[in-house]
Amino acid sequence: MATENKYNSFNRPALAECVPELVATARGDKPATLVIAGGTLVNVISGELIPNMSIAIQGSRIAYVGKDVSHTIGEHTTIIDAKGKYMAPGLLDGHCHIESTQLTVTQFAKAVLPLGTTGGFFDPHEISNVLGLPGLRYMVEEARTTPLAAYMQVASCVPSTNPDLETTGASFGPEEVAEALKWGNDVIGLGEVMNFPGVVYGDAKMIGEIQETLRAGKIVDGHFTWPADDWRLPVYAAAGVTGDHECVTKEDVVERIRLGMYANMRQGSAWHDVAETIKAHTELGLDTRRMMLVTDDRSSESLLKEGHINFVVRHAIAQGVKPVTAFQMATINTAERFGVARDIGSITPGSCADIILLEGNLADVNVQMTIAAGKVVAENGQMVANWQDYEYPLEARETVHLNREITEQDFVIKAPIPEGTVSARAIQVIENHAETKEKIVSVPVSGHEVRIDVHSGLSKIAVFERHKGTGNYAVGLVSDIGFHKPAAIAMTVAHDSHNLVIIGNDDALMAKASQVVVSMQGGVAVVTEDETTPFPLRIAGLMSAEPFETVAKQSSAISQALYDAGCKLNNAFMTLSLLALVVIPELRLSDKGLVSISPDGIKQVPLFV
Amino acid sequence: MATENKYNSFNRPALAECVPELVATARGDKPATLVIAGGTLVNVISGELIPNMSIAIQGSRIAYVGKDVSHTIGEHTTIIDAKGKYMAPGLLDGHCHIESTQLTVTQFAKAVLPLGTTGGFFDPHEISNVLGLPGLRYMVEEARTTPLAAYMQVASCVPSTNPDLETTGASFGPEEVAEALKWGNDVIGLGEVMNFPGVVYGDAKMIGEIQETLRAGKIVDGHFTWPADDWRLPVYAAAGVTGDHECVTKEDVVERIRLGMYANMRQGSAWHDVAETIKAHTELGLDTRRMMLVTDDRSSESLLKEGHINFVVRHAIAQGVKPVTAFQMATINTAERFGVARDIGSITPGSCADIILLEGNLADVNVQMTIAAGKVVAENGQMVANWQDYEYPLEARETVHLNREITEQDFVIKAPIPEGTVSARAIQVIENHAETKEKIVSVPVSGHEVRIDVHSGLSKIAVFERHKGTGNYAVGLVSDIGFHKPAAIAMTVAHDSHNLVIIGNDDALMAKASQVVVSMQGGVAVVTEDETTPFPLRIAGLMSAEPFETVAKQSSAISQALYDAGCKLNNAFMTLSLLALVVIPELRLSDKGLVSISPDGIKQVPLFV
Repeated sequence: MATENKYNSFNRPALAECVPELVATARGDKPATLVIAGGTLVNVISGELIPNMSIAIQGSRIAYVGKDVSHTIGEHTTIIDAKGKYMAPGLLDGHCHIESTQLTVTQFAKAVLPLGTTGGFFDPHEISNVLGLPGLRYMVEEARTTPLAAYMQVASCVPSTNPDLETTGASFGPEEVAEALKWGNDVIGLGEVMNFPGVVYGDAKMIGEIQETLRAGKIVDGHFTWPADDWRLPVYAAAGVTGDHECVTKEDVVERIRLGMYANMRQGSAWHDVAETIKAHTELGLDTRRMMLVTDDRSSESLLKEGHINFVVRHAIAQGVKPVTAFQMATINTAERFGVARDIGSITPGSCADIILLEGNLADVNVQMTIAAGKVVAENGQMVANWQDYEYPLEARETVHLNREITEQDFVIKAPIPEGTVSARAIQVIENHAETKEKIVSVPVSGHEVRIDVHSGLSKIAVFERHKGTGNYAVGLVSDIGFHKPAAIAMTVAHDSHNLVIIGNDDALMAKASQVVVSMQGGVAVVTEDETTPFPLRIAGLMSAEPFETVAKQSSAISQALYDAGCKLNNAFMTLSLLALVVIPELRLSDKGLVSISPDGIKQVPLFV
Repeated sequence: MATENKYNSFNRPALAECVPELVATARGDKPATLVIAGGTLVNVISGELIPNMSIAIQGSRIAYVGKDVSHTIGEHTTIIDAKGKYMAPGLLDGHCHIESTQLTVTQFAKAVLPLGTTGGFFDPHEISNVLGLPGLRYMVEEARTTPLAAYMQVASCVPSTNPDLETTGASFGPEEVAEALKWGNDVIGLGEVMNFPGVVYGDAKMIGEIQETLRAGKIVDGHFTWPADDWRLPVYAAAGVTGDHECVTKEDVVERIRLGMYANMRQGSAWHDVAETIKAHTELGLDTRRMMLVTDDRSSESLLKEGHINFVVRHAIAQGVKPVTAFQMATINTAERFGVARDIGSITPGSCADIILLEGNLADVNVQMTIAAGKVVAENGQMVANWQDYEYPLEARETVHLNREITEQDFVIKAPIPEGTVSARAIQVIENHAETKEKIVSVPVSGHEVRIDVHSGLSKIAVFERHKGTGNYAVGLVSDIGFHKPAAIAMTVAHDSHNLVIIGNDDALMAKASQVVVSMQGGVAVVTEDETTPFPLRIAGLMSAEPFETVAKQSSAISQALYDAGCKLNNAFMTLSLLALVVIPELRLSDKGLVSISPDGIKQVPLFV
C-alpha cells in the first residue's frame, strides 16, 4: 500500500486533457495507477449503496467504476482493499471561510483531509478586507499547492457595507471582481453578497459586481438575514443570487429553495443551524437536491474536537436524514450548485479521484482513508502526504498599522450627564448564534464617565482601525460576556473589517491586551490580572502558519483563558470576533461607532438612548 | 389580455444585462410588463404545488414570484388571471431532432408552442450530414428568430460512422466542432456520440471532438446501444459523456445514472420507451434528478395527434410518476443537465419567463396558454404570436445530386447461383423500435436474379448516394414491411446520411418513386400501380417550409398510402427512414452495402450467407 510521503504533486488537469488516457485505462490498455477494490459504493447520483464495487484510477481521475476492474490492473497498480468499507465521494464544504480556522490553506488542508474533506468553496473575504486583491491571490495560489479541490470566491463586500460605516484595508468593486474572476476556473464566483439591502435597493456597486460575475458565467452566493417571509427575498433572488447560508429556520430553507436558490444548512463552531434547518426536509418533506451542508466558520478547536464536514454530515443523519441523502448534501448537491459536478462530488468515471473510505456504521461517518486527486493523502486520522509550504510575502505579515499606542484613557466612555444612570444600547451576545440583540441597559455614571464593573454583567467593547493608521476608534457596551473577574481580550480577527477589537471590563487590561496584539503584528490576547495568553496570527492578523495542532492548542488556550475569566460561551472567541460585523442583526460596533441592522436597513445609532 | 399578434421580437438578453431592471421591478420601482395572478405554482425546484401564487415579469424574464405582486403592477402592466389554473415552467425537450418532424424550426416552434414546449436541446445532425456546418448555421440562425429557448448541439457523427461504411454530404471532425461551439451560448455541446465503439476504442476523431467540447466548457451527449450490463458503458462514461437517450430498459436507466449520466427517457413517434424505462423510478425507486423526458424523433403527425413533450409528461404520469416529478423531468432536470438552469426550467426570479398555464387535472397536462420569453405566444391550442419567416438559401434547397437517372435495372439483385434458392440476410423491421434484427431468409433465384414478390413478405431496399453524384448504390432485402400489393417508397430522409432510399417489391415502381423524389429535389414518394403520393421536402431533402398543418397532412398522406399498400407499422415512414442508420443494431443498408452492428462492432457483411 502506497501511503509513504512520496506524493508532492496534486495537479488536477482538466478532464479534456485526461480523456485519452482515462478511456485507455477504462478499456484495459493502460494500467490504472490506483485501484480501490470491493467496497460498498455510496452512489450519490442514483441515491444507492451498491456492494462489491471497485474503482480504477488513472492519475488524478477515476477511469472505471464497476463490479470488476481486473482488466485495469497492471504490474505497478497500487491496490487498496476496501472490503467491509464504504467508498464515498470526498466531502465538500459548500461555504467556508478558511481564515476563521486561523490556519493557512496548507494547514487547513492538513486538518480537514484526514476528516474526509477533499474540496470546498471558500470565500476569503477576511484576508480580502485586510489586503485586497493581493490577499485573495495569495490564498488562491496557496490553495493550488494543496491536494484539495479548492474553489475560491471573490469577496463581494469589501467593506461589508460602505466606508461611512466602517474602515477596511481594501475596497472591491465591479472592476476588482471582474479581474479576479479571470484568474482561473478555481475562482468560481462572487462571495456572499452581505449587503443585501444594497442589492434590493439597487446599489450600483453591488449590482455591478453581480453583473460582472454573471457575465463571466459564474455564480453569485447570498447572505440574506431578513425573515423568511420578508417580501424582499424574491427581489434579492431576481438579482441572480442562487445560494444562501443565512438560513436559521426551516422556513428560511423552504423560501430560498422555492425561489430557486440553494439553501446552505450551516453548522459552524459558534452557530448551530442544522438541527432546525434540516426540518425543511425531515418535517416538511422538501426535495433535498438544493440543500447543502456547510460550515461557514469553524475554529481549529472545533475541527480537532468535532470535525469538519464529516461532523456536519453525521449530525444531519442524527436528525433523521437518510445517510445517502446526507452525503448528497455534502457532495453532489454542492458540486452541482457550483457547476463542477463533472469534476467533483461523485464517484463516477471521469471525475477527480477524491474518495473516502469509511469504516463501521455509515451513519457514524467514520473516515478511515482519504484519497485526493488520485493519491492517498490521509489514513486513520493522520496525513500521510506532504508538500512544500507556501510562503506569504512580508506585505501579508505586517498588517497592523496604528498611529499611536493605545492607552487606558482610550476606553473611557464619556456620559451625557455628570452623575446618575443613563440608558444605553448594549450589544447582547447570543450563544451559538451569529445574531446579536440590542439590549437597552441602565448604566451608572460618575465624573461624566460610564462606570462598569465585574458585577454589572456588562463589558466595554472598542474597535480601533488598524489598516491605515487613521486613528479612528469607537467604544461601546456589550452584555452577556460573562466575565466574573477583571479581564480583557484584544484581537485583530474581527469580521469583516478586521480592525483591532478589545472587549473587557477593565480599561487597563484592555489597553494591555491591545498592546500585546500590536506587538505580535496581529492575533489575539486574553489578559487578566494574573495572566497573559497570546495567540499570534501573523498573516494578515488573521492566520498563523504554524502547524494545525499548534494553532488549535493556542486557540484552545484563548478559550480556556476566557472560560477561566468567566466567559463560558460556546466558541467564545469566534462569537466575540463577530461583534464588529455590521451586516448581521441587530447591533454591532465598528471603528465608526454603533451600527443597527434591521429589516429597515443598516444605520448608525448613538450609544445613549 | 394581450393576445394579439403584436409580438415580433423574442429576444432573450443575458441575465447579467437584465439584473438592474429585474430588481427595480421586483422592488416596485419599475412596473412589470406582464403579471400572471393567483394560480397554483408548479414549483419544480422545491417539488411542491403552491396555491395562490403570482408572477411578475419584466421583458423576457421573471422579476418576482410570491403571494402578492401588487407592488409590481403599473398602468401598462398586462394582467393574466390564473385563478383555478396551474402555472408550470415551459416544457423542455432534452433531446430532439427537429428535422424528424420535416418542419423548419419556425414551423416546429409554431407546432409545439401551443403544446407547452418553450425550449429544447436540438441536434441538427440530419441537415449537418447533408450540408455540413452551413446547414447547422442555418438552423441556429433560424432558431434565434423564434420564441423558443432553442439550444443546438454540434453533430458528432457526420458521418455517423466513417466514409468506408457510408457516404454523406459533409464530414465533421474536432476542428468543425470547435468552430461551431464558438457561435454562441446557444450552441450547447456535442450531439449524441453514436460512434460509441469509436470512443471506447480510442478513435482519434471521436476523442478529439469530445476534447474540444470539454475544452469549450460544454457538454457531451451520448448514444450507447450495447446492453446495460456491457462492461464498456463505464469506458464510454470515462470519456466525459454525460447523457444518453438510448435507454430501452429500466436497467439501461439505472446503469447510466449510477455512472453519473443523465438518462433520457424517450417517447418518439416510432419507439416507445418511457413505459419501460420509467420503472427505474416507479419500480426500482431511483433518485429522479438525472431522469429526463425526451422525444428524439417525432413526426409532424405525432405532434398533431398526440402532442410533444406535453404528451410524454402525461404518459409518464400515467405510469405512476407523481405529476410534479414528471414535470421536473421535462423542466429543471433538463435545464440542469445542460447547465442552463439559471435561464430556463423553473418559475423563479431571474429566469426567462417561459410559463405555461394548465387547466383541469394537472395529470392531464392540459396546456391552455403558453408564455415564452415573457410574451403570450399561444392560447387554447392556437398560436397568437407571429414573426418573420427565415429564408433558407438556394444551396440548402438543391441538395439531390445524382449522376444519372435511376432505372428499373438498378434494383436487380444478382444471385450467386443461376436457379434455386439462396440464404440471404434481410433487415427485419421491428414495430415501435429503432432496432432491427438480422433475419436469414431463403429467397428464390431464377435467371441469376433474386426474385421477390408480394407474397414473399420481403421487399427490396436500395440506397443511392445523393450528395456528390458518386453513383454509389447498394441493394438489399428487408422483411416485415407488410406490402400486400406492388408498391414502393422513395425518400431522401434516411438517417443519418440521408441518401436516397427506396423500398419496394416491384423494380419498376421503385424506379418511378425515386424519379418523383429526384424531380422534387428531395422528399418522399409512395408509388403503387394506381397512385403516386408525393411529399416534397425541399430544404436539404429533409424539411418543408410549408405550414405545420400542411406538412402534417402530406406526412399523413404518406402514412395512408403506405397503410393502403399493406405497410401498417406504427409511424411507418419514420421506422423505414432508419433502415440506413448504420449505428443501431442489428442490420442496415448504406450506399456501400449491408452493415452489421453488434456489441462486437460495426462492420460490412455480404448479402448472401
